Amino acid sequence: MDVYKTLREEAFEANREIPARNLAIYTWGNVSAFDAAKGIFAIKPSGVAYDDLTPEAMVVVDLEANVIDGKLNPSSDTKTHCVLYREFPSIAGITHTHSPYAVAWAQAGKSLPVYGATHADHGAGSIPCTGFMRPEAVRNDYEHETGKLIVETFRKEAVDPAHIQMVLVAGHGPFTWGKSASQSVYHAAVLEEICKMALLTLTLNAEAESLPEHIIRKHWERKHGPAAYYGQK
Amino acid sequence: MDVYKTLREEAFEANREIPARNLAIYTWGNVSAFDAAKGIFAIKPSGVAYDDLTPEAMVVVDLEANVIDGKLNPSSDTKTHCVLYREFPSIAGITHTHSPYAVAWAQAGKSLPVYGATHADHGAGSIPCTGFMRPEAVRNDYEHETGKLIVETFRKEAVDPAHIQMVLVAGHGPFTWGKSASQSVYHAAVLEEICKMALLTLTLNAEAESLPEHIIRKHWERKHGPAAYYGQK
Amino acid sequence: MDVYKTLREEAFEANREIPARNLAIYTWGNVSAFDAAKGIFAIKPSGVAYDDLTPEAMVVVDLEANVIDGKLNPSSDTKTHCVLYREFPSIAGITHTHSPYAVAWAQAGKSLPVYGATHADHGAGSIPCTGFMRPEAVRNDYEHETGKLIVETFRKEAVDPAHIQMVLVAGHGPFTWGKSASQSVYHAAVLEEICKMALLTLTLNAEAESLPEHIIRKHWERKHGPAAYYGQK
Amino acid sequence: MDVYKTLREEAFEANREIPARNLAIYTWGNVSAFDAAKGIFAIKPSGVAYDDLTPEAMVVVDLEANVIDGKLNPSSDTKTHCVLYREFPSIAGITHTHSPYAVAWAQAGKSLPVYGATHADHGAGSIPCTGFMRPEAVRNDYEHETGKLIVETFRKEAVDPAHIQMVLVAGHGPFTWGKSASQSVYHAAVLEEICKMALLTLTLNAEAESLPEHIIRKHWERKHGPAAYYGQK
Repeated sequence: MDVYKTLREEAFEANREIPARNLAIYTWGNVSAFDAAKGIFAIKPSGVAYDDLTPEAMVVVDLEANVIDGKLNPSSDTKTHCVLYREFPSIAGITHTHSPYAVAWAQAGKSLPVYGATHADHGAGSIPCTGFMRPEAVRNDYEHETGKLIVETFRKEAVDPAHIQMVLVAGHGPFTWGKSASQSVYHAAVLEEICKMALLTLTLNAEAESLPEHIIRKHWERKHGPAAYYGQK
Repeated sequence: MDVYKTLREEAFEANREIPARNLAIYTWGNVSAFDAAKGIFAIKPSGVAYDDLTPEAMVVVDLEANVIDGKLNPSSDTKTHCVLYREFPSIAGITHTHSPYAVAWAQAGKSLPVYGATHADHGAGSIPCTGFMRPEAVRNDYEHETGKLIVETFRKEAVDPAHIQMVLVAGHGPFTWGKSASQSVYHAAVLEEICKMALLTLTLNAEAESLPEHIIRKHWERKHGPAAYYGQK
Repeated sequence: MDVYKTLREEAFEANREIPARNLAIYTWGNVSAFDAAKGIFAIKPSGVAYDDLTPEAMVVVDLEANVIDGKLNPSSDTKTHCVLYREFPSIAGITHTHSPYAVAWAQAGKSLPVYGATHADHGAGSIPCTGFMRPEAVRNDYEHETGKLIVETFRKEAVDPAHIQMVLVAGHGPFTWGKSASQSVYHAAVLEEICKMALLTLTLNAEAESLPEHIIRKHWERKHGPAAYYGQK
Repeated sequence: MDVYKTLREEAFEANREIPARNLAIYTWGNVSAFDAAKGIFAIKPSGVAYDDLTPEAMVVVDLEANVIDGKLNPSSDTKTHCVLYREFPSIAGITHTHSPYAVAWAQAGKSLPVYGATHADHGAGSIPCTGFMRPEAVRNDYEHETGKLIVETFRKEAVDPAHIQMVLVAGHGPFTWGKSASQSVYHAAVLEEICKMALLTLTLNAEAESLPEHIIRKHWERKHGPAAYYGQK
């Protein structure tokens, strides 16, 4: 009997959303589902096509990236997930993709300003872009250091990861997270869409301004504030 | 027996066109169908995925946004629909989406000029973009004020909403309307397509000029004038 | 018995390619199939959705745009087809679409230079863009005058319509033709693709140069010259 | 009994990936599968639609482009494949497409810099763009000369074709290769995706810089170096 069945199924379902939402081609993305009580998570096996995935193929690892259960190698980005679960305590799912518009912002090395309500509905501030990792860090433990770079960027810019649940890693691409694996992949799709909208906005108006702060606040509050009124009870 | 059955089915069918025409991902758009005689309309429930919709799930509300019939919360944009039905007397359907090219024009804060026949076939003038809502208005009653902002923009610019059936709300996105729910979502698809064409036009020629007025007139008249000859009797 | 059965089926099949190849949404395009011996052609009925078409719905008209057989109104662009069949003797099929990249070039008022082999494979020269139609012509007989504008553009620029089988009508969109209805819609898909490639090329290099003449010639000749060696016998 | 059955099936399957991955419309691309021991390869027949292909339709040719087995004409690009198999000894599959973003870079005449990890994962250096072929070469034996142009470009720029497995032929489009037909078409899809990402990057930041060399190295090494840890054993 598989005591990790539910966690694996959650990770499996969320990984299948990557191709369903056109967030990566081939094997270029991964989702994990975290069990905070046990301190473990289930993650996509490395280099396996989405169509070939099964719940059983998901690899269960602890926060030191040790494989606890599973026959395959976990995603090569596993250590990045470890750092984020350790440092961002509120989260229970992480997604990494190579979706093209988010990658373009990451390759341009630019944080994503709040150009409109679509963005503000999902976070009342810019999506930070990290700097490039230094040579020593790359030599050290690349995926671990990628996680550290994300955490440091959020600390330095005083961004709350329970509020802004997306980041652009310079020259690489997006990582997103949330209260579940499913929400983290939803955020990956949101980020791709707002990155596309923002690029098209700048194409029309290179001087486009950020949405006024009072409208940003309103959109965030109506969906996520204490008096939120979006959706069903 | 459901006395609102026909209205609900009309709203249901039109809401399903949003994903079918790629006008919004997830739950990011809503359509309503209006019964002018009764002064009520059926609208998408808030935050429900399109695939989970049924005709029964549509919420029936009056023009003060009171729920008349239905178990779910209506769309968070319901009060915007109320204002438009009250102020634009000729219309019987409204659509709101977050389609990316229309959002880009709204985020760029630019009205859409008539660059060609595709646009002129559906309206013989620019599609207005509103200004940003002032802080007091946002604090007051946001969705109601969004409706007022649209109406004021049309009055100030002397645009007839029975003729130009589309608007861009600055920093937010498109609202469209028509003689039926189905026609309003058709106009949402038209607006996305002409916003895309116009952006590509400006990419090729930043000085592209508006279509000459005599050609704009002709395209509008052959489809909608008293001597229109497009389509079947 | 329908003596126009074959012609109607050819027109029907070619019209169905418009949505299949994403060349127009809703009803925004039409194809006709010409029978040169009889001097008649079958064309899409005006304003009917592609999914609702049947071979029987195709309208048979003569070169003066008189309906010879069929219950529906022919496409509002019928008179443009008439002029082209009369003036371009080698052709037996015509397609008009509102595909977005071709429309963008038409709205930008720019002829399409030969930026590469994909274009040269289908014509060894620029795709002409017409000028805007004058007010008197628009008042006169718009669709007839659209045909005349295309013919005049080809004559003035000394372009052979048996060789360059595509045109951009300024502020409107593309018309394409060929030896059959099927080939004309193939050319509509080719034109959309090369218009997209050319726009992307200019985005990368605003000074991009036309393919050298000796390579243009080669690509055309290997597919269409007397010693062509592309395809099967 | 068909002694070339396996090779034909490999070529057939890989050719079907061209439309499945949206790498070319109609017949605008071809893949071949090489048997190094026999010095022969199976390639797509010229001008046949992908939907009409069968394994039996694949044409078996030798390295002088002589047809060894098969009833149809081989791809018009066959001689380019011959040159690459002769000159790039490590490869066993070649793909040519007209995918739009790769064509745009080829038409812009620009080599593709390494803007990010998606690129570095598949090659630790720029993807070379050839120059235009001279008139004498075009007159001589065009497809043979296309192969020579690619080989000369790699020699002149000291690029190892076992490492960088993609090229842009100026004014034409991409050729890619690999250890199998299947890998060569994978590289064609990779090249299209990184060409798209790079164009979007430059749209956001015309001064975007290449990924730092130490990160390029790392991404290549973790997937392809002696201590690679991506994927399963």
